[in-house]
Amino acid sequence: MNIILDAHGGDHAPLEAIKGAELAVKEYGVSVTLCGVEEEIRALADEHKVNLDEMRIVPAAQVLPMAADPSEIFGQYSESSMAVSMRLLADGGGDALVTAGNTGAMAMGASIIVKRLPGIKRAALAVIVPNARGSYLLLDVGANVECRPEMLQQFGIMGSAYMEKVVNIQNPRVGMINIGTEETKGHPLQIEAGVLLRESAVNFIGNIEARELPFGGCDVAVCDGFTGNVTLKLTEGMGKWISAEFKRILLKKTSTKLAAILIRDGLTKFKQAMDYTEYGGAPLLGLRSPVIKAHGSSNAHAFKNAVRQAKTMVETEMIGQISQSLRDLNGHSQ
Amino acid sequence: MNIILDAHGGDHAPLEAIKGAELAVKEYGVSVTLCGVEEEIRALADEHKVNLDEMRIVPAAQVLPMAADPSEIFGQYSESSMAVSMRLLADGGGDALVTAGNTGAMAMGASIIVKRLPGIKRAALAVIVPNARGSYLLLDVGANVECRPEMLQQFGIMGSAYMEKVVNIQNPRVGMINIGTEETKGHPLQIEAGVLLRESAVNFIGNIEARELPFGGCDVAVCDGFTGNVTLKLTEGMGKWISAEFKRILLKKTSTKLAAILIRDGLTKFKQAMDYTEYGGAPLLGLRSPVIKAHGSSNAHAFKNAVRQAKTMVETEMIGQISQSLRDLNGHSQ
Repeated sequence: MNIILDAHGGDHAPLEAIKGAELAVKEYGVSVTLCGVEEEIRALADEHKVNLDEMRIVPAAQVLPMAADPSEIFGQYSESSMAVSMRLLADGGGDALVTAGNTGAMAMGASIIVKRLPGIKRAALAVIVPNARGSYLLLDVGANVECRPEMLQQFGIMGSAYMEKVVNIQNPRVGMINIGTEETKGHPLQIEAGVLLRESAVNFIGNIEARELPFGGCDVAVCDGFTGNVTLKLTEGMGKWISAEFKRILLKKTSTKLAAILIRDGLTKFKQAMDYTEYGGAPLLGLRSPVIKAHGSSNAHAFKNAVRQAKTMVETEMIGQISQSLRDLNGHSQ
Repeated sequence: MNIILDAHGGDHAPLEAIKGAELAVKEYGVSVTLCGVEEEIRALADEHKVNLDEMRIVPAAQVLPMAADPSEIFGQYSESSMAVSMRLLADGGGDALVTAGNTGAMAMGASIIVKRLPGIKRAALAVIVPNARGSYLLLDVGANVECRPEMLQQFGIMGSAYMEKVVNIQNPRVGMINIGTEETKGHPLQIEAGVLLRESAVNFIGNIEARELPFGGCDVAVCDGFTGNVTLKLTEGMGKWISAEFKRILLKKTSTKLAAILIRDGLTKFKQAMDYTEYGGAPLLGLRSPVIKAHGSSNAHAFKNAVRQAKTMVETEMIGQISQSLRDLNGHSQ
């Protein structure tokens, strides 16, 4: 198996990207194709003693900036490492792609270059979010601000396939984020998507209120990209704020510092459970090949986990599962 | 000053409502008019030794159930304590109204019976949400699922007046919840509302991402009722989940239980800061008189604080401030 890694995406690229690639090659036995500015990659590898022996480097002339206008992946950055790695994936030069670069450019570029599966309206960006039962998959988290009901239905099908194949959850419970559990709640979007999801072969449990998400009310939470983005960022913000408050309480004086020592093990475990780097990246679902968006602040460990995630998506033939579910749905509705 | 209290709203009514009224009379020197089934109120007061001497009771024949269809406040529950208290307020029988009853019925009933201020498109339900800087006002939290840009502009104006007058925040920073800080982000709703808010006399600081809300990124967060409802419920859910995780860590074994004792003071303070009962209720803004929705699970303490909040809304002439701001805006845009 061969995973393509865009070496220039993210705040700590390319050094952390190539370090992560080295770890992944060693740990998972995959081959990795690095895509980027070859001289820069080789010079950094020399300086930091990163072993590139098992890796192929496909050169790219440019780096797409994190703040660039997404459509520039087809314009002034059409020779960027992100664009080149996508063409490589589309042409069969690898089995999956990992990038920590510009999210908008990735979503736009992948839909056109890697292409969507037949019948898929829009690719959705999905994120694994930690919660009381381990984690749930939230999608879409921002690739599609405006959604139609059929898109939310497809998000449910794709999210269900991902959780079943990649995270190994049997018969994942799919919920739709809404402002009440009744079928009449929400915008017309949610009311109509609810009808479609109930007709689908996924295990749709109905509407879910946002307060149930942290307690594991569902395994897949479906919503439009606006709601998903707010949900994801508020989850992050609340986690950081409350953790900071507890830290402040623990560091207040000598006696509370003793308390901090006594509960250190538990706190460390909880911090690990909340750590996004353990979960790899955000899969862009609905494409013909797996594409993973690693977090912009990914370190080597996060890149390594994103490669593992890409490997699992390939091994478990998750994309075939999505295609099959779509064919079943179309057969069913005809 | 005379505050009308719907004695039958909420899970613990009427007992906690009348206990709260007694506390409020004693502590704030207001007079309270209880609206409800008189025999039941008097019997409970006798049994629990609640002093009703300073209170007037306006009888109502019915109780509107928490799960009733909101429109039934004009139908089979038109003689309920909620409907009767609203007519009493509209007719000048009190200065403000507090109810812990059915939120939908309250929003619908108040708009028609108490009536909106001239020029106000829709009343908005606003909630004070605890955060790192104390609190912020979130509106709308569910009274208006579908919003137009002018409604979000008015939410900003009303929320700003509330925070300035009632919570005593000078020149409150008004932000609009969105998926990015750029003016081009979001649905057409947010893009157009942004233009209107920048034209308003409020201190509009632009878009705010949900991760900044817990850290006090703004004093007033404006959004449609769908987004506000998700934001409010996820804030609640995350707070409860993380607190439960810390509790689990603290109760694990003898040594961690010692830690719990060492940090008890800090935890208690944090818990108090997170406690909704301290903040009173959710004001329904945009009406001709103050109406406060107390939490459905309000105890006597929460009812008392909601009465205090109603008193402050009357004393500070917050509604006059909203009217003035609207007139200024209309003068400005003409």
